[in-house]
Amino acid sequence: MKAFVMDGIGETALVEKDSPEPGPMDAILEPTVGLVCTSDCHTVHGAIGDRENLTLGHEVVGIVDEVGSAVEDFEAGDRVAVGAITPDWNSEAAQAGHSSQSNQALGGWKFANVKDGTFAEYAHVNDADGNLVHIPDGISDHEAVYITDMMTTGFAGAENANIPLGGTVAVFAQGPVGLMATKGAALQGAGKIIAVETVESRQRLAREYGADHVVDFQKGDPVAEIMELTDDEGVDSAIEALGSDQTLQDCIKAVKPGGTVSNVGYHGGDEFRHIPREEWGVGMAEINIVTDLCPGGSLRLKRLLRLLEQGRVDPTKMTTHEFDFEDVQEAFNMMDTKEDDIIKPLIHFN
Amino acid sequence: MKAFVMDGIGETALVEKDSPEPGPMDAILEPTVGLVCTSDCHTVHGAIGDRENLTLGHEVVGIVDEVGSAVEDFEAGDRVAVGAITPDWNSEAAQAGHSSQSNQALGGWKFANVKDGTFAEYAHVNDADGNLVHIPDGISDHEAVYITDMMTTGFAGAENANIPLGGTVAVFAQGPVGLMATKGAALQGAGKIIAVETVESRQRLAREYGADHVVDFQKGDPVAEIMELTDDEGVDSAIEALGSDQTLQDCIKAVKPGGTVSNVGYHGGDEFRHIPREEWGVGMAEINIVTDLCPGGSLRLKRLLRLLEQGRVDPTKMTTHEFDFEDVQEAFNMMDTKEDDIIKPLIHFN
Amino acid sequence: MKAFVMDGIGETALVEKDSPEPGPMDAILEPTVGLVCTSDCHTVHGAIGDRENLTLGHEVVGIVDEVGSAVEDFEAGDRVAVGAITPDWNSEAAQAGHSSQSNQALGGWKFANVKDGTFAEYAHVNDADGNLVHIPDGISDHEAVYITDMMTTGFAGAENANIPLGGTVAVFAQGPVGLMATKGAALQGAGKIIAVETVESRQRLAREYGADHVVDFQKGDPVAEIMELTDDEGVDSAIEALGSDQTLQDCIKAVKPGGTVSNVGYHGGDEFRHIPREEWGVGMAEINIVTDLCPGGSLRLKRLLRLLEQGRVDPTKMTTHEFDFEDVQEAFNMMDTKEDDIIKPLIHFN
Amino acid sequence: MKAFVMDGIGETALVEKDSPEPGPMDAILEPTVGLVCTSDCHTVHGAIGDRENLTLGHEVVGIVDEVGSAVEDFEAGDRVAVGAITPDWNSEAAQAGHSSQSNQALGGWKFANVKDGTFAEYAHVNDADGNLVHIPDGISDHEAVYITDMMTTGFAGAENANIPLGGTVAVFAQGPVGLMATKGAALQGAGKIIAVETVESRQRLAREYGADHVVDFQKGDPVAEIMELTDDEGVDSAIEALGSDQTLQDCIKAVKPGGTVSNVGYHGGDEFRHIPREEWGVGMAEINIVTDLCPGGSLRLKRLLRLLEQGRVDPTKMTTHEFDFEDVQEAFNMMDTKEDDIIKPLIHFN
Repeated sequence: MKAFVMDGIGETALVEKDSPEPGPMDAILEPTVGLVCTSDCHTVHGAIGDRENLTLGHEVVGIVDEVGSAVEDFEAGDRVAVGAITPDWNSEAAQAGHSSQSNQALGGWKFANVKDGTFAEYAHVNDADGNLVHIPDGISDHEAVYITDMMTTGFAGAENANIPLGGTVAVFAQGPVGLMATKGAALQGAGKIIAVETVESRQRLAREYGADHVVDFQKGDPVAEIMELTDDEGVDSAIEALGSDQTLQDCIKAVKPGGTVSNVGYHGGDEFRHIPREEWGVGMAEINIVTDLCPGGSLRLKRLLRLLEQGRVDPTKMTTHEFDFEDVQEAFNMMDTKEDDIIKPLIHFN
Repeated sequence: MKAFVMDGIGETALVEKDSPEPGPMDAILEPTVGLVCTSDCHTVHGAIGDRENLTLGHEVVGIVDEVGSAVEDFEAGDRVAVGAITPDWNSEAAQAGHSSQSNQALGGWKFANVKDGTFAEYAHVNDADGNLVHIPDGISDHEAVYITDMMTTGFAGAENANIPLGGTVAVFAQGPVGLMATKGAALQGAGKIIAVETVESRQRLAREYGADHVVDFQKGDPVAEIMELTDDEGVDSAIEALGSDQTLQDCIKAVKPGGTVSNVGYHGGDEFRHIPREEWGVGMAEINIVTDLCPGGSLRLKRLLRLLEQGRVDPTKMTTHEFDFEDVQEAFNMMDTKEDDIIKPLIHFN
Repeated sequence: MKAFVMDGIGETALVEKDSPEPGPMDAILEPTVGLVCTSDCHTVHGAIGDRENLTLGHEVVGIVDEVGSAVEDFEAGDRVAVGAITPDWNSEAAQAGHSSQSNQALGGWKFANVKDGTFAEYAHVNDADGNLVHIPDGISDHEAVYITDMMTTGFAGAENANIPLGGTVAVFAQGPVGLMATKGAALQGAGKIIAVETVESRQRLAREYGADHVVDFQKGDPVAEIMELTDDEGVDSAIEALGSDQTLQDCIKAVKPGGTVSNVGYHGGDEFRHIPREEWGVGMAEINIVTDLCPGGSLRLKRLLRLLEQGRVDPTKMTTHEFDFEDVQEAFNMMDTKEDDIIKPLIHFN
Repeated sequence: MKAFVMDGIGETALVEKDSPEPGPMDAILEPTVGLVCTSDCHTVHGAIGDRENLTLGHEVVGIVDEVGSAVEDFEAGDRVAVGAITPDWNSEAAQAGHSSQSNQALGGWKFANVKDGTFAEYAHVNDADGNLVHIPDGISDHEAVYITDMMTTGFAGAENANIPLGGTVAVFAQGPVGLMATKGAALQGAGKIIAVETVESRQRLAREYGADHVVDFQKGDPVAEIMELTDDEGVDSAIEALGSDQTLQDCIKAVKPGGTVSNVGYHGGDEFRHIPREEWGVGMAEINIVTDLCPGGSLRLKRLLRLLEQGRVDPTKMTTHEFDFEDVQEAFNMMDTKEDDIIKPLIHFN
């Protein structure tokens, strides 16, 4: 089968490789549409180390091709979505409520990390019953593919942020995860949502997804603007959706005592992130810093599909470009450089 | 009246000053016994800025001398304890469940910060009904004075640490707050408590308060030892009871994915604290960092008194030295230098 | 001053009585608009016992007439709202996070219960700083008066219901509290909201406030319909907004194992409410039954005002009738009989 | 193999039947010791309907005899414990944090309910990696068998009761689950534990496990006594460990506003349980009623083993009688009649 792989740091290619086989609890999926993720780019640049002939991709919906002998809820021909994170549900971490950390830190992240990803004609899904969901008839593949990562991750940023009904929130960075965090804050009943972003098309989308104010960090100190917008109180919750040291520091500075900083950004690069000691209240201001990795699982996906069914969110506004699978390299390159104000490129298999 | 004051950075003196007057909701307290706190020393060295003629001290029990017109639950002659933190209970922060942050960061901390403290013949208590508690007959002043700060702060370190019943905990530093965090972990049902400490007398107390293992950080890397004691899993919860950058980093390194770092140490000094990026799971390992300031209030104090009444904890083991109020300067000096393995010096008034 | 009072069970009258005086922390409020609440009717019919010459009413906004000496945040002339519930913020219950239960069960409920209510030319507000909120310029009195009870109570029904993002909810009864519970479920990110109601005008409003399905309990068993709408799973959360035994039982039957029943209905009448043993999972299905009394306080009110400011909710759709204060008796009578499909009658003072 | 079975309502027998076979994720266990549970008696009397030739028993430790092809953490010869509840970890309920309800209400309860139990020479365990735990060398089979149901269930009663550190708790009934709830309250840091019981040997054990007061319900109204012991406040938390209507009502009456009723009793019999309307605060006193079914899983079991390892609890005090497996019928009969003040009978296999 054809697969789009990483083959050493900085190297990608569309290659031929063997199709995967299912174990007793697994499924083989034939993708229909997928999305390129910035973390695919991070991976190729070496963020998680070197990889050879590793199929990329983790955001995909498709048709079940084959299931293992112990799979109960799915069969060949089913139209399904699979989470970017596919936990081992009987692991201790999952039993403790941290399924994305199953068996090791970030252990639920298997696609394009510890096994082949989804940019291929066939993809292997572990624990099909636990990690797949049927897509209802009224929902398009294009809509559904957004539940696999962008919606679940961005929304988790808001859910973890401990936003009181009517509370104040700042969402730092309005890439696709940040945009969904903004939407997530709206879905959690925030009373004032402040989006931090400089790119105009993203600012516009942020407003469509629920931002009441947009702060352009290139036109002034975003923390100072947030303080002004909150009568110098700071926000109840700040969401980090970028993964930079500066942004994390700004989050800590922007929340009020008793507030929450919710991180969903992937932090690459330097050895340390920095907590500004004074604004952190010298370790006593009850400012909590919480983090998460994209929640997966059939239940989570099912709940997100309901939000699509009821029209509570339209994630397809984030699709700025479309490509055939044959041109996935071009999609990948654009995502890497963010040229043409790309937000999410949709890949059509077939 | 006599009062032990800070009079400029680095300067202390026993002086004469006017006695305080109560507002309608307040009380005037005549201390009987008190404890010197390391944070008194931090204050004198400039941690919260310069202060002139500011009475020191915030850990005290005593007799009510006078109450304001609107006080309902107390009258002159009552034997009472007052929390080190005396919140404004109708503030927004208190309404949000963060009473120690009332009206501003650390705003519940009034004694020896924004008003005179308790090392004086008389001390002013705001909101007497909300911030005092009657001491039952069976409990000595010596026992009771520990609820005002050491027990409430140390225990909070454990309560915030999200310790599962039977879970694993590491408590970094076994000063009086750390010792009470160790005891707090035992009271929360921890299944394995690892205390980190190098001073022998503190190691011994740590074991008495419930530590199953003691790790001496001068004899090896404490994180490595904690990993060995937990089959390389790391602990569910790590409690920072010192306030150092190194210790906070070690906490982050010592917890497993999904674990909690609970800070009760006061962090003075440099501009930043450092989060080790990789061990933090690149911001996605669901390691949460929570902080707290000493919980106050009549309800909290009442609950802590019950633990003394039932003999669930004996905090007086931490009293290594005793002084008359006339000699408070000497007690302060010893606390500042930690000479003679001092843990807590008890001050007798009158 | 003129006041609309209960004067014995079943008796009401518009009478003259003395104006109230503020204590040091209190305020006197001159109402501008108010709403009649069904609980006013319950009170007059004896639900909380007999009362003589007790001013009715607890939903009101107005102008501050006078403040006590210790009030800091308000002064005469300020346009404000006051919660129906006005807690004693330094009480033990408030310190425990249950401010509406301050000092006794339902102890935060003072208006028209243990002191005069707000259907008068002047009303007394205890702890002004803790219980009043300034109304921003852009918000009308008509909008703001809904935060005092209907929004805070109905939304609390949803907040307590533990609704997962994308989860399923049934809201039993679409009176004004139920309608706001429906809206609250939408604001909490529910993925499927099922409203139970038979009155057509209320069904229509339920849809406007976010209901995805409306079940008419007079056309079939609502539990059976809810099961059908949820693939026989039951809902994650059921909200009781009526206060009847049958409805509470239906809630227990309608939730799935692990689900939550959130009660905001006032339960009058018989000695018992009944838990259906089998559907309750013989006490082991992890179905939790939680209850609440209208949350009050300046912080809560401030957060609700933000939702009005951002246009996230328009409660004025529930105002079906308007009256001058002189005609409050007529408004009361209509509310009592629910004639003309009344939902909420607005009272204009002066 | 030999098995002790229910064979129609009211009928039991020691019979021969075929040994079980493991599926790919399963294990076959050869029991060494077990305990008879009162719920075995309930089952035989028809509580969950009729059953034919169903092996009884669900509290057991033993040696792994064989594992399925996909099992990773266990192999033949391992000494292990298995929870009474063996969840399907990839079910939606387990993903939602309600593993004991997997796939249906009480769906994690498989032994002696939907498949053969553990009173046999061999027992089948579903999802061995998720549901077994290795027993460390220092822990006896006798100790370890208590983690499978009595400790996990009783402790859950306390964990769910929302006991504040230093809070007050009443535990109704001191059978083995109630005794472990009492111990659980102590492990959660309760400040005053009131046990309700009339049998003298159980009263004595209750004190040993941490009860500060014992109330004999045959010598007076237990609610009145609890009120007296709490200055008429009521308790923060009440635990129902019996499963009777009267006891559940007493729990509701005994808690203060804002308190929690935690049910771990199995409720058989009549159609309804009764909530006393007034003491429930007419549905507005923030009294929550929560329920649970025995938590299972390798992580839970591992945590409980730590408490045994550190000597934090000695459950073997509850073993009042011992029997060989050949005499299991006699043990069952005694458990059914509770003669000779039996608390738990230990069964020795081979």
